[in-house]
Amino acid sequence: MVKSFLFKVEDLRVYIIRFLTKLKISRVDAEITADILLAADLRGVDSHGIIRLDTYYGSRLRKGLIDPTSPYKVLQETATTLAIDGGMGMGQVVSYHAMQMCIEKARQSGLAMATVRNSNHYGIAGYYAMMALSQDMIGISFTNSQPLVAPTYGRKAILGTNPIAVAVPAAKSRPYVLDMATSIVPIGRITVYQKAKEEIPLGWGIDKNGQVTNDPNEVLNGGALMPLGGIDVMRGYKGYGLGMLVDIFSGVLSGAAFGVDVAHPNQDRPANVGHFFGAVRIDAFRPLEEFKQDMDTFFNQLKDSPKAVGHERIYIPGEKEFERAENNAKNGIPLLSTVVDMLKESGNLVGVEFDLQPVGEVEE
Amino acid sequence: MVKSFLFKVEDLRVYIIRFLTKLKISRVDAEITADILLAADLRGVDSHGIIRLDTYYGSRLRKGLIDPTSPYKVLQETATTLAIDGGMGMGQVVSYHAMQMCIEKARQSGLAMATVRNSNHYGIAGYYAMMALSQDMIGISFTNSQPLVAPTYGRKAILGTNPIAVAVPAAKSRPYVLDMATSIVPIGRITVYQKAKEEIPLGWGIDKNGQVTNDPNEVLNGGALMPLGGIDVMRGYKGYGLGMLVDIFSGVLSGAAFGVDVAHPNQDRPANVGHFFGAVRIDAFRPLEEFKQDMDTFFNQLKDSPKAVGHERIYIPGEKEFERAENNAKNGIPLLSTVVDMLKESGNLVGVEFDLQPVGEVEE
Repeated sequence: MVKSFLFKVEDLRVYIIRFLTKLKISRVDAEITADILLAADLRGVDSHGIIRLDTYYGSRLRKGLIDPTSPYKVLQETATTLAIDGGMGMGQVVSYHAMQMCIEKARQSGLAMATVRNSNHYGIAGYYAMMALSQDMIGISFTNSQPLVAPTYGRKAILGTNPIAVAVPAAKSRPYVLDMATSIVPIGRITVYQKAKEEIPLGWGIDKNGQVTNDPNEVLNGGALMPLGGIDVMRGYKGYGLGMLVDIFSGVLSGAAFGVDVAHPNQDRPANVGHFFGAVRIDAFRPLEEFKQDMDTFFNQLKDSPKAVGHERIYIPGEKEFERAENNAKNGIPLLSTVVDMLKESGNLVGVEFDLQPVGEVEE
Repeated sequence: MVKSFLFKVEDLRVYIIRFLTKLKISRVDAEITADILLAADLRGVDSHGIIRLDTYYGSRLRKGLIDPTSPYKVLQETATTLAIDGGMGMGQVVSYHAMQMCIEKARQSGLAMATVRNSNHYGIAGYYAMMALSQDMIGISFTNSQPLVAPTYGRKAILGTNPIAVAVPAAKSRPYVLDMATSIVPIGRITVYQKAKEEIPLGWGIDKNGQVTNDPNEVLNGGALMPLGGIDVMRGYKGYGLGMLVDIFSGVLSGAAFGVDVAHPNQDRPANVGHFFGAVRIDAFRPLEEFKQDMDTFFNQLKDSPKAVGHERIYIPGEKEFERAENNAKNGIPLLSTVVDMLKESGNLVGVEFDLQPVGEVEE
């Protein structure tokens, strides 16, 4: 059992904005960033939420590795495409605008895609894909990240955990929201097992010789994560292929760094992260309401189908996260006391005291 | 060791065209179909090649479940999008034309996407994605198929093995060609183990209770395949999410059947398979030559990286298949004697004798 303190979303939002504006980010850009960070905490993707406020953003802003003015510019543009330079700004700020422009272009042209180079960590991929939902469009979002995953038959981390996010609206049902790393687990999962001094399931990661190990230390010290699928016999080369795909669209197509050249947020060099966004107008293919009705029917086919022994429910991608978000919005976002301490510490560094009062506690 | 007979590609091509034209398919449509079927055999994806000539196509043509005239028509069209009704024709014929139109639209508009409803099995997904390569575009191709894969926590097959194919050109290197089912293995792999009376690796499939089994009979008799990733702890829900994604684009967006409603090729009802195609003009985002050079660099990062103990080579998706295709084009396509017998039998049924002489033999 681990105890967490519950904080009101609005309180955390105000704090993040204070923190970022103190580091010379404009109020409007700080609001965008706060919303995207907190979307992660709301949805239960803690690893991409407020916990990263200083490590991924504050520390890089202080070192001059993120430009607080986020001076992105459009390099190339057509009625359907956009190539953007992020100007070493906040990943969230350029990505929010890139996806907005993508949606606007898709409204006119049916489809649109945007690439971003020269950016930084953009938070959860799913946020941008979900921006299309209120417009009754399909939204797509990929990003590359620092190398953590070895290719099949390799032993060195070359690819990031390169997520794929796609959001699709339905009628009465909640939308389909896929937001998945192309590795089996993120590196943070391995760290959790290391701290707990527990073995990891065989297949999540490899040691420095490229062999599967259940020792989290071996993975973290010169080893690597395995792509979705894992070992060869389970077709891990498909996960490797998907990880490459994300880097081709995010890194190579955008003209950003790719593969081993993407910097870790804690490295003292420009990250040059690349992103990819897409928007698809559904009614270009068939009447919108028919499509949305069929999405509901599809969900029901899956959810009403017989369950495996020992299971009572089949989920649609994103469904657990929507339920978590509703719960967290109501009851508060849980933060471990170690996270609260970290926020206090970085707040002191920046000169913005983390003085929020928890609204409750929870043990999980 | 199993013996195969080697047949010249051109001989098989002539035979397929004779077979299909006898069943009232036009010469030009038969040529398209022959090329796509043989592309599978050349690349080593035997399960989607000439072996299906009668089971997926001939038998359905004879029953009137495939219209030999392939009377597809465009339902809805913009400068970037196409929604097509396949008219219960040959999947290959409508798909070939849909991808051609997609490429033409992308040439004008930067991007294009096409959906197809009311179609039949279209062979290998990768063929259509690869059509974009000679135009220096990125090609995308998805299709749904009859239900074989259970959702995570389910025990009934709801999703097809729904493949994802994406092809991306490089400079001096062979292109990147991902062509992967979103299940761990295709159903044919399970049958191979059943025939050999061997256990399957634990995780490929589940029994009728939804529990992982290594008995191929349990998977084939009321069980199901598992999505890429496999069991929960290995994040099989990501493969499940990807399988759904393919069916959303191929089935729901096109207005075709989806999920359990897609017919198996051996069922006596319209299949109503759905497909999805996309083409992306690379130079809409950055200069083509820079992009292609970076693809080579990316490949080299991966291929030159240290190998896992016991391995000597890291592959780029599609690389093994290109090598196989070169070998098969030179030495002939290997067909098992059981396959040759089957071709003779269906040839007799149709009235087109399979009288080809093998050019050699091979034991594998």
